[in-house]
Amino acid sequence: MAVKAQVLYDFTAEPGNNELTVQEGEILTLTNQSIGSGWVEARNSRGNVGLVPEDYIEVKTILIISFVFVISLLYLEHIAINGNEAWTDFDIHRSLVFQSVILLLSVMVILCHMAVGSVYSFDEEWDDDSDDGKSTGGYGGSQAEEGGTMQRGGAHSTMKLSLNKFPGFSKTPNPEVYLLTKHISKGDDRLPIYMGEVGPVWLYPQIQLDCVVADPKKGSKMYGLKSYIEYQITPNTTNRPVNHRYKHFDWLYERLVEKFACALPIPCLPDKQVTGRFEEEFIKMRMERLQGWMSRMCRHPVISNSDVFQLFLNYRDEKEWKLGKRKAEKDEIVGVKIFSNIDPELPELDPAQVEQKYEMYSQFTRSMDNSVKELLAVGHLHWKRCTGPLQKEYRQIGKAFQNLSSVFNTSAYPREYTLKEALTATGKTYEEIAEIVAGQPKKDLHFLMETNHEYKGLLGCFPDTIAVHKAAIDKVKEADHLVVMNKISQQDKLIMEKNLSTMSYALQAEMNHFHSNRIYDYNRLVQFYLEEQVKFYETVSDGILYLF
Amino acid sequence: MAVKAQVLYDFTAEPGNNELTVQEGEILTLTNQSIGSGWVEARNSRGNVGLVPEDYIEVKTILIISFVFVISLLYLEHIAINGNEAWTDFDIHRSLVFQSVILLLSVMVILCHMAVGSVYSFDEEWDDDSDDGKSTGGYGGSQAEEGGTMQRGGAHSTMKLSLNKFPGFSKTPNPEVYLLTKHISKGDDRLPIYMGEVGPVWLYPQIQLDCVVADPKKGSKMYGLKSYIEYQITPNTTNRPVNHRYKHFDWLYERLVEKFACALPIPCLPDKQVTGRFEEEFIKMRMERLQGWMSRMCRHPVISNSDVFQLFLNYRDEKEWKLGKRKAEKDEIVGVKIFSNIDPELPELDPAQVEQKYEMYSQFTRSMDNSVKELLAVGHLHWKRCTGPLQKEYRQIGKAFQNLSSVFNTSAYPREYTLKEALTATGKTYEEIAEIVAGQPKKDLHFLMETNHEYKGLLGCFPDTIAVHKAAIDKVKEADHLVVMNKISQQDKLIMEKNLSTMSYALQAEMNHFHSNRIYDYNRLVQFYLEEQVKFYETVSDGILYLF
Repeated sequence: MAVKAQVLYDFTAEPGNNELTVQEGEILTLTNQSIGSGWVEARNSRGNVGLVPEDYIEVKTILIISFVFVISLLYLEHIAINGNEAWTDFDIHRSLVFQSVILLLSVMVILCHMAVGSVYSFDEEWDDDSDDGKSTGGYGGSQAEEGGTMQRGGAHSTMKLSLNKFPGFSKTPNPEVYLLTKHISKGDDRLPIYMGEVGPVWLYPQIQLDCVVADPKKGSKMYGLKSYIEYQITPNTTNRPVNHRYKHFDWLYERLVEKFACALPIPCLPDKQVTGRFEEEFIKMRMERLQGWMSRMCRHPVISNSDVFQLFLNYRDEKEWKLGKRKAEKDEIVGVKIFSNIDPELPELDPAQVEQKYEMYSQFTRSMDNSVKELLAVGHLHWKRCTGPLQKEYRQIGKAFQNLSSVFNTSAYPREYTLKEALTATGKTYEEIAEIVAGQPKKDLHFLMETNHEYKGLLGCFPDTIAVHKAAIDKVKEADHLVVMNKISQQDKLIMEKNLSTMSYALQAEMNHFHSNRIYDYNRLVQFYLEEQVKFYETVSDGILYLF
Repeated sequence: MAVKAQVLYDFTAEPGNNELTVQEGEILTLTNQSIGSGWVEARNSRGNVGLVPEDYIEVKTILIISFVFVISLLYLEHIAINGNEAWTDFDIHRSLVFQSVILLLSVMVILCHMAVGSVYSFDEEWDDDSDDGKSTGGYGGSQAEEGGTMQRGGAHSTMKLSLNKFPGFSKTPNPEVYLLTKHISKGDDRLPIYMGEVGPVWLYPQIQLDCVVADPKKGSKMYGLKSYIEYQITPNTTNRPVNHRYKHFDWLYERLVEKFACALPIPCLPDKQVTGRFEEEFIKMRMERLQGWMSRMCRHPVISNSDVFQLFLNYRDEKEWKLGKRKAEKDEIVGVKIFSNIDPELPELDPAQVEQKYEMYSQFTRSMDNSVKELLAVGHLHWKRCTGPLQKEYRQIGKAFQNLSSVFNTSAYPREYTLKEALTATGKTYEEIAEIVAGQPKKDLHFLMETNHEYKGLLGCFPDTIAVHKAAIDKVKEADHLVVMNKISQQDKLIMEKNLSTMSYALQAEMNHFHSNRIYDYNRLVQFYLEEQVKFYETVSDGILYLF
C-alpha cells in the first residue's frame, strides 16, 4: 500500500543532505518509513525523492481512520444526547457494537502508527481506556448545547491521531454566553487579578509548586499482552510520590484544556514530537518532556491551584483518584465560563483599551512564534551539520594526518620518529575533535532546542486563546447595533463591556505570567548555551594544547 | 563559440555545492567562465552542468593555438638551423612573417586566456620574448642528437600553455650515453657525495643560502601597451637586491630542468595553480609562491651552488646578466650528463642494491603523493565549509538571537532589558564567530595547503626523475646479454655498473635531502597549524566569555 502523507509545515531541504523541500498542504508518497531518527523518505508529485522530518507530515491513512473514528464517536454521542430518554437495551447493544468498531479502528490506527516508526511504540497507552471507558463521554455531552465548551473532544483526538502538535479549536468557542451573564464569583473558585509591578497579575502562591517526574517503570496488563510505562511524580509540597501513566497525563491535559484553554494557553503534552530510535531513548526523552510540561503547569498559579491538578499530584489511593476523576469530568465551569470566576479588583477597561491590548499580544506572540521557529530551524541545521558533515570532515582530517604519518614511517630515514609521532597524535586529536563536535549538540543545542520547542508549542496555543478574546471584542462591537435593534438592553451592553474588561484582565495577567516565565527561561537558556559553548571551545583547545 | 576543455585531474564534486564530478581526460563544454574564485561552470557529455576548478581543466582552444604556435616556432628554428648558412634577406623576410604570425597567435592566446578569467591576466609575460628571442634556440639544438638532453623545450611550453603543473618528459632521457662513458669529474663542477649520519648526502655549504622575494612593482614597455611585474630578490649572501620578472624565473626554471632534472626533481614554478580574483591578490599569491620556490631552491646544496642560480641572485648589471644567460644556455653538462659530475667517495653498489633502493624511493614518493593529495582534498573541503555553509550558519544563529531580541523588545514588559541586551550581545558574538570561522582557513589551513601544494608539485617531479634511474637499471640488466652478443666489452659492463652506482648515490643523496627538508617542513606545518587552531578556539571561547 502506497502510504500518502500531507505536509503540515514548510520544510526547506538542506543541500547535500538528501532532503526534500516540501510545502504545507503538499501530498507526498512515503517511500521508506524505516529511516529512523525522526526522518522518512518521501516522493513528491514531481517525482523527487528525499528525506522529510516525520514531525512535518501527517500520514493520510491515519487521518482517514481518525476521521472514521471521530464520526463514530460523534454518532455514539448523538444517540446518547438525542435519545433524550433512558437507554433501552437496544441502545446499549448498539453502543456496544459501536464501541467494538471503535476498538477495531483503534487497533488499525496503532498498527499504522507502528508502521510509521518505532517512536510510536507507546502510543497504545491512549487507547487503553478499559478502566476509563466511561469517562470518554465526559466531553462533548450536556455542556455542548450551551455553546460555551471548548469543542475539543473530537478535535483533540484528531490532533493526536494526525500527529498534529497544536490543539485547534474546531471552531472558536462563542463567548456570548459568558458576556451576557452577570456573574458573582464564588469563594473557592474565585480567580483574583491584582495590579502588580508589571501590570495585572494572577495571585501567586507563597511557595511555588514543583514536582519531579522520574523513575519510569514498565508495567503490563492483560497477562502481559499490553505494556505501559508508569512514571513517578513527586510534588515538593507533600514529597509523596504518585504514579501516573502517559494516558493519565493525557487525561489531565484534556481536563485543563476543557477548563482553562479559553483563558490560558495549555501547551500540548509531549507526544509525536518525541523521536528516538530506541525504547530507552524514547522513554528518557518523553520523561524529560513530561517533566518540562509538569514544571510549566506547576509554575502557573491558576493551573497549579486547580482541583484537578491538585488531585493529579496528591491523590492518596485509587479510590480518591477515581472519585476525583469523576468529579473533574463533571466540572461545569469549563470553556468561556472560566471567565466568570475571574475577579479583577481593578477599574473597568473600555473596549478600545481592550482591543489595543489584544492587538499588542496578538502581534507579539506571532512575532515570537516566528523567531522561535527561526532559531529552531537554524539549530536543527547546525545540529545536523555537527553530527554529519563536520564530524566526517574532522575524521577525514584526522585520518589524513595519520595516513601521512604511516607513509612517513616507511621512509627508512633515521630521523623520522618525532614527526611521525606528532602527526599520529595530531590525527588522533582530530578524530577526537570529530567526536566532540558531533557530541556537542546534545550538550548545548539540546537544551536550546527543547526550550524553544516548548515555546513553539505554547505559542501555538495562543492564536486559539486569543481568538476567544477577538470574538468577544467583535460581540461587544455589535452590541450598540443590537441595542438599537432591541435585541439586548442597554444594561446588557454595559454587562458585556464589564465582562470584556474582565476577559482582558485575564489575558493581561496571563501575558504577564508568560513574560515573566519567558524571561526566566530564556535567560537560563542563553546562560547555559554560552557556558556549554565555552566548555566546548576550551575542551578542543586544551586537547590541541596537550599535543605540544 | 562553445569553448571545450579537457579535464587534467579527477575531481570529485562535493554534494550540495553545485560541483561536477569529472575524470581525467574527459571533454567538457564551458558554459560560464566568469564564475571567478578559481571556478568555471561546465557541462559534461551526459549533459550535467556544474562547477569545476579552473586548475583542473585545460581549455582546448588554447591548446590548439599553442600547438600552432609551437609548430611555428619549431619551423622558424628549422630554418635557422638547417639553413646552415648566413641568412639571406629572403630568410629574414620569411622569419619576420613568421614572427608576425606568432605575434598574432600570441594575442589570440592572451584573449582566450583573458576569457577564461582574470587570473591569467599576467600570463602575457611568457610570450613577451622580444628581448630573449635569440635564446629560444638554446634547447633542442645540437645536444638533441646525443639523446642525453631532457626533451623539455617543446614539452615545457606545452606544459605551460596547457596549464599542466608537472613537467613531463616527452620521453625518458636515455641514460646510455652516460652509462658507457668513463668520466673524470672536473674540479669546479664536481658534485661530491659523502656518507652522512643518515646515509649518502650532498655536500652542504657552511652558510645556507636564502633570499627574500619582495616588493612587486608594475612596469610597462612598448609605450604602456604591455605591463609586467618585477620582483625584488635579495639574497642573504650579498644583501644586494636584484630585480626579476616572472619570465626570468621561468628562464631559470628551464635552465635548472635542463641541467639537473635527471638527478634532482625541480618543482614547477607557481603558475596556473595561483588563483585570485583581483590583481593585487594574484600578485601577492604569486610572490608568496615564488618566495617558497626560491627558498626551496636556495636550500638545495647542488642547485644553490650552480652557476646559473648564482647568476640569477648575484648579477651586478645588465651586461653581466646577459653574458651569464648566454653562457648558461650554452652549458653542455645537461640531462643525464650531470651524473658525470657526481663523485661519490663511497664503495660501489651492486645493481641489486641499486634496484632495491630504487623500489623503496619509488614506493615512498608514490605513497606520500597520495597522502598529500588526501590532505589537500580534505583541506579544500574544510576550507569551503568554513567559508561557506559554516559561516552562513553562524550568521544565521547570530541573526536568530538578534531577531528574538528585537521581538522581546516589543513586549512592553518592564523587565525586558537585561535579557534583550544579552540576546543581542549573543547574536552579535555569533555573527563575529561567523567571521572568525570564515577567516580561519587563511590563518591555519592556508599554510598547510601551501606546503602540501608545494610537496604535491615536488612529488609530481619524482616519477620522471626516478624513471631515468629505472631506465639505467634496465640498461645495466641488458649488459650481460650485450657482452655475450659482443656489442659491448666486459670492461664497458663494469663501467656501466660503476656509473649506475653513482646514479644511485645521487638518488640516495637527493632522497636524504628530500627527507630532511620534509621533516623540517612538516614539523613546522603541524606546529603552526596546531598553534593557529588553539588561537582560534581560544579566541572564540574568549569572545563568548566576554558576554558573561
